[in-house]
Amino acid sequence: MTGFAAGTLPYCSFTSADLDGPRVGVGVGDRVLDLTALAPTLVPDHAALFADGTLDRFLAAGPQVWATVREVLLEAAPDASPTRPAGEVRLHLPFAVADYVDFYASRHHATNVGRIFRPDGEPLTPNWDHLPIGYHGRAGTVVVSGTPVCRPSGQLRSADGSIGFGPSARLDIEAEIGFVVGVGSGLGDQVGVDAFEQHVFGICVVNDWSARDIQAWEYVPLGPFLGKSFATSVSPWIVPWAALVDARTDPPPPRVDLQDYLSPPGEGLDLELIVAINGTVVSRPPFATMSWTPAQMLAHLTVNGASLRTGDLFASGTVSGPEPDQRGSLLELSWNGTTPVALADGTERGFLQDGDTVTISAAARTRDGRLLPLGEVEGRVV
Amino acid sequence: MTGFAAGTLPYCSFTSADLDGPRVGVGVGDRVLDLTALAPTLVPDHAALFADGTLDRFLAAGPQVWATVREVLLEAAPDASPTRPAGEVRLHLPFAVADYVDFYASRHHATNVGRIFRPDGEPLTPNWDHLPIGYHGRAGTVVVSGTPVCRPSGQLRSADGSIGFGPSARLDIEAEIGFVVGVGSGLGDQVGVDAFEQHVFGICVVNDWSARDIQAWEYVPLGPFLGKSFATSVSPWIVPWAALVDARTDPPPPRVDLQDYLSPPGEGLDLELIVAINGTVVSRPPFATMSWTPAQMLAHLTVNGASLRTGDLFASGTVSGPEPDQRGSLLELSWNGTTPVALADGTERGFLQDGDTVTISAAARTRDGRLLPLGEVEGRVV
Repeated sequence: MTGFAAGTLPYCSFTSADLDGPRVGVGVGDRVLDLTALAPTLVPDHAALFADGTLDRFLAAGPQVWATVREVLLEAAPDASPTRPAGEVRLHLPFAVADYVDFYASRHHATNVGRIFRPDGEPLTPNWDHLPIGYHGRAGTVVVSGTPVCRPSGQLRSADGSIGFGPSARLDIEAEIGFVVGVGSGLGDQVGVDAFEQHVFGICVVNDWSARDIQAWEYVPLGPFLGKSFATSVSPWIVPWAALVDARTDPPPPRVDLQDYLSPPGEGLDLELIVAINGTVVSRPPFATMSWTPAQMLAHLTVNGASLRTGDLFASGTVSGPEPDQRGSLLELSWNGTTPVALADGTERGFLQDGDTVTISAAARTRDGRLLPLGEVEGRVV
Repeated sequence: MTGFAAGTLPYCSFTSADLDGPRVGVGVGDRVLDLTALAPTLVPDHAALFADGTLDRFLAAGPQVWATVREVLLEAAPDASPTRPAGEVRLHLPFAVADYVDFYASRHHATNVGRIFRPDGEPLTPNWDHLPIGYHGRAGTVVVSGTPVCRPSGQLRSADGSIGFGPSARLDIEAEIGFVVGVGSGLGDQVGVDAFEQHVFGICVVNDWSARDIQAWEYVPLGPFLGKSFATSVSPWIVPWAALVDARTDPPPPRVDLQDYLSPPGEGLDLELIVAINGTVVSRPPFATMSWTPAQMLAHLTVNGASLRTGDLFASGTVSGPEPDQRGSLLELSWNGTTPVALADGTERGFLQDGDTVTISAAARTRDGRLLPLGEVEGRVV
C-alpha cells in the first residue's frame, strides 16, 4: 500500500490478532481507521451498519447514507482514532459477492483477442459496437488480494487436434476495474444510465485470472467457463465513486448510433493501471480508453429486467490501450506467447510460471494533474 | 401438486397467514408436514437446522444428517402432524442460490439448436462429445415457481440486419432438471464423479426462460447473457437424491474416449418431464436420454479447482429426446417458429404470448414401473 490521499477514503474489512472480530476500516494515508470502533461516536445514527465488520449493510444503505458518512469522514478522518498501520492488519474480502458479471469493454483488448483467436475473421463481432458484451462469472471464486491462485487443470487441445488433460500452460491475467453495487433493483426494473449513482457504491481493482488454453477449447458456443472460474482476485479496498469526481472523463465517441438506453453514455474514469510481474512493470493500461462506461454496462445488464442485489460486482473486462505497453493481459503482451515479455531478472514470460506474483495497482488522474492511489490486487501462482 | 409418493419426502419452505414465519415443510401425499414445528420432538439433535424456515442450514449439514433425518421421516411422516393441505400454503424459494450454472447436456437439444442457429455448419461443436459444456447464469434472478415472468426487452437484429430495440418476440422455455449442492468444497479441490453424493442434496424442476432473439444477437463470442438472465424458475420442492435410487439409470455410452475425471460416468435418472402451455401438453422430454450425468457435470465444474458453496445450483440444460414431441423448448418444437405448436383452444404458438402459463412437471420412473411425482414449476408471462 502506497498511501491514500486525504479525500479518497476507501473502505475495507480487516482483522487483527488483538481484535475480537472483523472491523470496517477506512484508508487514511498509510493507516487504517477503525470505523467499527469509531462509528458510535462519529456517525451514531449509522453505527449499526459497520458492526459486523463488513461493508454489506453499509452498501445496502444507499447513496444518502454513503454521502453522510463520507462527509463526516472528510472532516474527521485526518485526526480520528483508533488507527493502525495498514501493513499490520489482515485485509479480507470486504463484501459478500452476489452475482459477478464480466464485460468486454476495451476496443483495443477485444480487437487484439479477435486477431489472435480468429485470425481469418473480422477481429470484432458485429454486435461489439452496439452493446457492451458481457457474461456471468463465478461469484464464489472471487477472492481477496493476496489469496494464492492454484494453476487450474483442464482439457487442452494440442496443435495436432488431440485432446489431453493437464495443468494449464497458458495461465494469464486480466487487468480490470470492478464496480460494486450497493442498492439493488426489482425484477422487471431497468436501471437507466442516469440512475448509476443511485446503485453503484464504488470501485475496486480486479485480476480476472484466465487459462487461455482451457478457454480456447471450451468457449464455443456458450462462452468462457472453466478457463475463468477458478479465481478472480479483487483489491481489498473499495474506493467510493464519490471520491472519483475529479477523475471523470468523457468516453471515446461511439462508432454507431446507440440505442436510447445507452445514451448519453455517462462518465468514464481517467485511471492508470500498472501491471507488474515479480516486481517488473510490464504494462500501464489506461482506463480512459474504454469504449463503454460503467453506467452503460449497468444499464445494459438491467435492460432486460434482471434485478440487482447488494454485493453484485461487475467488471470492465481487460483494460488495454492502443500501445503495445498498455495491454492488460499476457495474451496480448506476448501475442499468444510469440513475443515474450522480459522481466528484470533476465527471464521472459509468454504466460505465467508457478511462483510468479502479479500485482495490479490503479491510480486516478485528476483534472488538475494529481495521481490518487486506489489500491492494488496481488496474487501468486501456486 | 399431484401428491407425492410415501418414499419421496421432498422438502420446501412455506408460509401461511396463521404462522409467524417461514417453515421447512415435507411433502406427504397432498399435505405439507411442518418440519420446523415437529423437529424438536422428531429429530431433536437437528432441530436447529430447520428453525429459520429455509433449507440453507440443512443443506450444509451434509449427507449423514440428510440420511438420519430421512430415515426418521420415512418411518414417522405418514402419521406425523401438524400437517396442512399443500394447496393452502405459500411456497417460497427454499434455499439461497449461491452460483447458478447451466449445462447443455442433451445431444438432441444441442443438435437441434445447432441446426437452427448454424444451418451451414456441423450442428455440434467439436468439444461437445468431450466435455459437458456449461456456463454461469444469474443466481439473483432464480425465482420460485409461480413468480410472474416479465417479457424482457433488448436489442434485436432484423432480417435486414438493422438493429432495433423492443420486447422479445421469441420468448421461450427450457425444460430442465436442477441439482442443489449442499456441501461446499475448497478452492483448488476437485470433486470427482464418485464424490457426487457427498455434495449434492437433491433435484428440482427448472424452467430456464430464454429470449431467442436477444440471445441470437448477443451471444457471440462470450455466450448467453441478457437472453437468459431475466428469470429462471425453479420448483419449490427439492427432492432428495436419496429418494431417486430406484430411478437411476446408465447414461447413453460416450462417443469418444473420455478423460479420466469424467469416467466412469456415474448415474443418470429415468425422469419424464411434461411441458404444458395453458394446460395443453406440448412435450414429454425424457431425462434418461441426457448424454452427461449430473456427477459428470459436477466433476467438470470443479476440475479446474473452482470451489463449491452450499446453495450452488446447476441445471442440466434443456432436456430433449429424439422424437419431435420430446423437445424441451419451443425453439425446437416450432423449429424456430416455422411449425407452430397447436394448443387445445385452437390457437398456435411459435413462441410464448403474453398471458401464457407454462407448467413443467417431472416424475421419476422406477425400475418396477412406478411413476413418482417430483413437483412442478409454473410461470405466467406478463
